[in-house]
Amino acid sequence: MILALAGGVGGAKLAHGLAKLLEPDQLLVVVNTGDDFEHLGLPISPDLDTVTYKLAGINNPDTGWGLIGESWAFMSALESLGGESWFRLGDRDLATHVIRAKGLREGNSLSKVTADIASHYGILHRIVPMSDHPVRTIVETDIGDLPFQIYFVREKCEPITKRVKFEGANNAFPSELFMEALNNEAVNAIVICPSNPILSIAPILALSGVRNRLRSHPAPLIAVSPIIAGRAVKGPTAKIFEEMKMDSSALGVANYYHDVLDGIVIDSQDAHLAASISSKGIDVITADILMNSTSDQVRLAGDVLEFAQRLRKVEVSNAV
Amino acid sequence: MILALAGGVGGAKLAHGLAKLLEPDQLLVVVNTGDDFEHLGLPISPDLDTVTYKLAGINNPDTGWGLIGESWAFMSALESLGGESWFRLGDRDLATHVIRAKGLREGNSLSKVTADIASHYGILHRIVPMSDHPVRTIVETDIGDLPFQIYFVREKCEPITKRVKFEGANNAFPSELFMEALNNEAVNAIVICPSNPILSIAPILALSGVRNRLRSHPAPLIAVSPIIAGRAVKGPTAKIFEEMKMDSSALGVANYYHDVLDGIVIDSQDAHLAASISSKGIDVITADILMNSTSDQVRLAGDVLEFAQRLRKVEVSNAV
Repeated sequence: MILALAGGVGGAKLAHGLAKLLEPDQLLVVVNTGDDFEHLGLPISPDLDTVTYKLAGINNPDTGWGLIGESWAFMSALESLGGESWFRLGDRDLATHVIRAKGLREGNSLSKVTADIASHYGILHRIVPMSDHPVRTIVETDIGDLPFQIYFVREKCEPITKRVKFEGANNAFPSELFMEALNNEAVNAIVICPSNPILSIAPILALSGVRNRLRSHPAPLIAVSPIIAGRAVKGPTAKIFEEMKMDSSALGVANYYHDVLDGIVIDSQDAHLAASISSKGIDVITADILMNSTSDQVRLAGDVLEFAQRLRKVEVSNAV
Repeated sequence: MILALAGGVGGAKLAHGLAKLLEPDQLLVVVNTGDDFEHLGLPISPDLDTVTYKLAGINNPDTGWGLIGESWAFMSALESLGGESWFRLGDRDLATHVIRAKGLREGNSLSKVTADIASHYGILHRIVPMSDHPVRTIVETDIGDLPFQIYFVREKCEPITKRVKFEGANNAFPSELFMEALNNEAVNAIVICPSNPILSIAPILALSGVRNRLRSHPAPLIAVSPIIAGRAVKGPTAKIFEEMKMDSSALGVANYYHDVLDGIVIDSQDAHLAASISSKGIDVITADILMNSTSDQVRLAGDVLEFAQRLRKVEVSNAV
């Protein structure tokens, strides 16, 4: 069984590739919920929806969020009534949030509601929130502390990041299936998808007990670098690494994860960094990380699984 | 100034006619909120919206509710996610409910929120809820007590009505502008629009103090019959009158309102009932009540205003 930790677009793409290669019971995708927020009275879970829509094959590939073929009648009516329009909710997407709101209002966990929505979309693989407790990512910037969506969507990542904190993470336990996987030795690889390490993966690692459990879990932990040739595939990863005085490269990513990491997949363009990464005791492979198509996603997922298998053999032979 | 009491479609049509003839400060439209309910976590005010959309000229004339040119992407997505679909919420209409929810959540009264929405739609005449306190219409039927929308929309008015009650009405005061009008002698006619007397007007009359205030107000109170030739123009009025052993005719309407009524406008087809109504001390005029067009609405509104003026003169001459 494979445990994948994912944020938004990049995470969704690799999760999609893994889902194409693995049976439903062989994959658990754990998704960041630090970006969740309430908007217009509705609970919004952007990364959960991005992963769900991707695995259902109904995602909008151009925006990286929302549904393909979406319509915007609600949004335009809301604008004409003077409503907030900086966060765009499509007509069909809105149904997801309304269903989620109803499920939560009726006392169900976010895990349960997420599973119900995924099931209605015909998804067989399991997608779970990192936690059923609220965690809220706050970006400390030069213009003050900003809740994630204000920073990310309304302010378009323009403010300079000083630090990122995860309110509630210390008191939030992993969701039930995530906790089970962390304690399950049948999990034979843990994959950190190519999502923003600081904004999308760090909240997962910040949950109570997760970092320790990842360190002690027998399975190899493999990250896929979201940075290629010093640039993020999408989003502000490289910009934030720079603002936080970190090396905005695959080496910087390896450094960032070094305490939990067994291996990292870096892009072929970054092959010159492999020696530096290896010297820190982290295994490296190179691959084409850019995923423009389903076949790219499946190919990269295959590379990751093969790498994990190799690391398991090394561990076994070391143990012998 | 004219005070008009209205429910849904029929009320909205006459209110529209009155608005075409009167300046904004000469008309106050008080709307039934007994049909209000919460659905999918949103506060829905069907009659307020029907009147608002009608006065804004954006109502759907075919259904009698909702917006013209509406789209249904949200609803179809909601259905595919297993959500409740018996109450149809169009994509644009949904924005009204979301804006109302936000306004109420922020502590504004329904009156304030309604005025804001009307203002965004460019409406100059005042539309107010009958009360800012919750009143809930419950229909006691042969299959049990049904909240209004369950009876009306989900069960399509098929159950047999035994009685109708208005939960909360005893403790609900009229909204501020309604109360002001009830105490304002500058109001020189009170018009009960051709809405369902039992379902749409009775909740307004049931509010704390309203019936007494209407009886003692010096202005003539005129109703327009929603029943023509024994049949309701729209909706279950005649059916409910019969089920409650009342005369489903303009005479039955006059009887139902007799304790507050000075005059009634009945359809030309019902001219033969005029003598029976007059014999109860209620003034009668006949007119074409069916309103298929804006010009019909303006014509009927003109008839009502003329009738009111005549009744005022009679009162003045009686006083002299």
